[in-house]
Amino acid sequence: MNTTYTIGRYLIDRLGELGIRHIFGVPGDYNLSFLDTIIEHPALDWVGNCNELNAAYAADGYARIHGIAALVTTFGVGELSAVNGIAGSRAEQVPVVKITGSPATKIADEGRLVHHTLGDGAFDHFSKMYKEVTAAQTTLTAENATEEIDRVLRTCWYEKAPVYINLPVDIHALPAKQPKEPLLQEEQAASIDTISLMLGTLIPVIEKAKSPVILADYQVSRFHAEEALMNLAEATGFPVATLSMGKGIFNEEHPQFIGVYSGKTSPDYLRNRIDNADCILSVGVKLTDSITSGFSQEFMDSAVIQISPEEVNYQGIKFSKISLEESLNQLAGTVKKRDAQSLNIIPVTEQQKEEPFYVKEDQALTQKRFWEMVRLFIQKDDVVVADQGTSFFGAQTVPLKENVTFVGQPLWGSIGYTLPATLGTQLANPSRRNILLIGDGAFQLTFQEVSTMLREDLHPIIFVINNDGYTVERSIHGPEAKYNDIKMWRYANIPAILGGNKNFKSYKTTTEGELADALKDMAKSPDVLRFVEVVTQKMDMPKVLTVLGKIFAAQND
Amino acid sequence: MNTTYTIGRYLIDRLGELGIRHIFGVPGDYNLSFLDTIIEHPALDWVGNCNELNAAYAADGYARIHGIAALVTTFGVGELSAVNGIAGSRAEQVPVVKITGSPATKIADEGRLVHHTLGDGAFDHFSKMYKEVTAAQTTLTAENATEEIDRVLRTCWYEKAPVYINLPVDIHALPAKQPKEPLLQEEQAASIDTISLMLGTLIPVIEKAKSPVILADYQVSRFHAEEALMNLAEATGFPVATLSMGKGIFNEEHPQFIGVYSGKTSPDYLRNRIDNADCILSVGVKLTDSITSGFSQEFMDSAVIQISPEEVNYQGIKFSKISLEESLNQLAGTVKKRDAQSLNIIPVTEQQKEEPFYVKEDQALTQKRFWEMVRLFIQKDDVVVADQGTSFFGAQTVPLKENVTFVGQPLWGSIGYTLPATLGTQLANPSRRNILLIGDGAFQLTFQEVSTMLREDLHPIIFVINNDGYTVERSIHGPEAKYNDIKMWRYANIPAILGGNKNFKSYKTTTEGELADALKDMAKSPDVLRFVEVVTQKMDMPKVLTVLGKIFAAQND
Repeated sequence: MNTTYTIGRYLIDRLGELGIRHIFGVPGDYNLSFLDTIIEHPALDWVGNCNELNAAYAADGYARIHGIAALVTTFGVGELSAVNGIAGSRAEQVPVVKITGSPATKIADEGRLVHHTLGDGAFDHFSKMYKEVTAAQTTLTAENATEEIDRVLRTCWYEKAPVYINLPVDIHALPAKQPKEPLLQEEQAASIDTISLMLGTLIPVIEKAKSPVILADYQVSRFHAEEALMNLAEATGFPVATLSMGKGIFNEEHPQFIGVYSGKTSPDYLRNRIDNADCILSVGVKLTDSITSGFSQEFMDSAVIQISPEEVNYQGIKFSKISLEESLNQLAGTVKKRDAQSLNIIPVTEQQKEEPFYVKEDQALTQKRFWEMVRLFIQKDDVVVADQGTSFFGAQTVPLKENVTFVGQPLWGSIGYTLPATLGTQLANPSRRNILLIGDGAFQLTFQEVSTMLREDLHPIIFVINNDGYTVERSIHGPEAKYNDIKMWRYANIPAILGGNKNFKSYKTTTEGELADALKDMAKSPDVLRFVEVVTQKMDMPKVLTVLGKIFAAQND
Repeated sequence: MNTTYTIGRYLIDRLGELGIRHIFGVPGDYNLSFLDTIIEHPALDWVGNCNELNAAYAADGYARIHGIAALVTTFGVGELSAVNGIAGSRAEQVPVVKITGSPATKIADEGRLVHHTLGDGAFDHFSKMYKEVTAAQTTLTAENATEEIDRVLRTCWYEKAPVYINLPVDIHALPAKQPKEPLLQEEQAASIDTISLMLGTLIPVIEKAKSPVILADYQVSRFHAEEALMNLAEATGFPVATLSMGKGIFNEEHPQFIGVYSGKTSPDYLRNRIDNADCILSVGVKLTDSITSGFSQEFMDSAVIQISPEEVNYQGIKFSKISLEESLNQLAGTVKKRDAQSLNIIPVTEQQKEEPFYVKEDQALTQKRFWEMVRLFIQKDDVVVADQGTSFFGAQTVPLKENVTFVGQPLWGSIGYTLPATLGTQLANPSRRNILLIGDGAFQLTFQEVSTMLREDLHPIIFVINNDGYTVERSIHGPEAKYNDIKMWRYANIPAILGGNKNFKSYKTTTEGELADALKDMAKSPDVLRFVEVVTQKMDMPKVLTVLGKIFAAQND
């Protein structure tokens, strides 16, 4: 073990300071000796993945639960395989530190024709590519390393965005000074002037509104403002909806929760409440096509008070340098609570009462009935991960119990993301029950990471919804086209083949009875990975998707 | 079926004109309607892959056998997953046409926040990234489409490099004029002056050399100059060696073939012939670290006549605008043939005589004995694909029979490349026997494409060399480190799980007897995919790799 304090150790200590306990990635000769430093570190574990894209997805999932994540790959081949995952983190504002182990400084300076380069002597092609999808980049040198590490890690943390660190293989073992100051500074409170101007402007608007609502989305989760959102909700008494990207950031069993708004595919009550609101406290929202059913929201821009991570904006008046949490808490501390009756809220728990489900034993599984069974299956405190296809569009309409975390990727929408992401979400907190919902098409992209889950002895529950092809694409175009067909696999046998031994249970279900039995049986084995193949019909899809498919097809004309 | 002649049809017709018969890729809503045009086209087939990286690898393999290839993915998520494969094509000079189906022009012009974008209104992040790894790029519009298609396809063909076509979903169905001129022009012959100057300068040098050799590499294959190389060899009578990247471009059973040169890891005879040559006709060679055992060649630069795809260079005198084929043929047509005896050639067929192999039934398989068995197994006209690990370094020393094509990726060196690449090489010519040699670590990255081979009813022979982890990395650093371990899978069961039915045979072998039996048995079933797990010891590696590991470790210091 190396006793000198090194640049590599400094980097890992800083990652540890941010709470990172696992580093994902794939070894390569340009990063191997740095991996030694990770393995030797008392506070962090190395988690090798089957490939680099899966490592990036796993890191993204880990960061969504744990606040931040890191992965290490080799130069060129490794980092380019991971780049789609990092772009996803950029789109969905997930802080991930991407570390590339690269050829020695001298090799790069001399432009030598070494492996994992394009053979043209240029060593900056890939860092330039990463510039397009990360918020900060650096190449570490003997001189700049500790300052640069701090700079990019701060950007990652404060901006909630991926960053890129190029770590030449000869640099990490050089000596460095241990950090003296903590990496993160106390966040500066907004100025008292800004706050009083904001409250002076907005409180009267909010208090005089006749049909106000709170509409919240994913940035609440990224900027850890769930509690402040709850404060504002309870201080106002207003009905609260989320968008699907932020599903689960507000307790869906709360009497003020009225549903997941999705533009014109929303249930009528919810749609009316949002589209006809005269004041929308829009919290951490970004309106993108998938979550608004193709920008089909109909509320007035003039009704929107946009509360963003860095500013509040109302009809073009901007209050800047104020954090999401502070905006929410300041408003909550000042606003007068509205009388519940006058707001006339019908909560989701009333709109969609949880009814007892009577299993029809031999009835073939349908999407509709499957999602009803899923609703009853999901418990308080679960993590639910849903892939961007029938899984996501089905799950988005399932009311969740308190403190359920919902993970999806509706903006970036990279199918297959969720399987490795579940490796990350489950490692981030092994004591919560993780439930993955993924279609067969998506599963085929990235399923080798089931092997890593087994190796790490994790116990998620994986539902593979086998509807024989790319059903989400069928909904948009070519329902019977060859390109939407995929090879039928023996899904239920996969955990055994990928190294499962006594640490998994697997089920194939085609009827309600079989699925009910599987759910019952798996409850007896909480300490193993559970894998359920759910066979449904090719063109059977969640209602939202039927409509959305047509909307997307029109958008492409 | 659309009866108007469209931009999409124009593009596909041009691809067909280049000889492309299969287009790889993964569907997505921004490319679906263009895929209809592919499916409807009488001369081309759509081959869907399990994921986009695999599609890019498959296209690369197809192009290496077939001359050129194409793949289609969707925007963002799809194209970024494929980019590592395209970068590999760039590094190794493989012409691949990358087509991205992207959001409608209007959507992009308005900067709308649609799925598969970073949600920042910018639509050029990914095309900028592709600029780093392709030789030409274009975004098609109603106005520029046919000209731009021709421009980038010509670059692809003539420069032997990947190109990038951004095809917005609203563009491909617009009307276009059918092509009138052929896409490719007759290549211009070099000027008579250049040729006579070149011959005047070089022929005396070549004829007076005392210990001349021909050293040839992969560009001979990319620029289709194998026949011209043979002409030059036979016209001169000189001994011929290749580098491993160009292994197989010259008949290894030829009496002038003296081996695969790899710097200081070469056998003594070969190393002496090359390093002490006083004239090296270096044909289509690029000296990179993996193929020279870390730049350990010791021949004199001043002895080298560098014959490249576009020019000939001798001691700084350059003869330009002359194709590889023409240079070789001109030299061959002029040079006086040397007396064979004076050249004193010991061909590989003498150096490494093919000895009968006596199977030791219960002997555990070793690398050494495995490669001896592989040598006897490979037949004339086979395609051998070897992954960049123990497989490549083992295979590079196996003498090949006539007309065997060898495919590897020693410069880019992306492990896992070869499995999807074999889908491509086999589809490019289903009648040749394809043999894939891949390690367990590499296999885990991309193995889902076995499913596509089964779906397409292809019949390659796949050897998975199971040595329990990343042995190529162990040779460089951390032989017992956790990061070089991988989960042990039940490899031999995989074809059955990924949809194999009666169209495969699978074997698990741990002894020489078992492997010999498997080889005998599979000969009876040429019309199915054959899959052989070959169990060897963790630290047992080809001799070349033992040395190379140390060299690479030193390069990283």
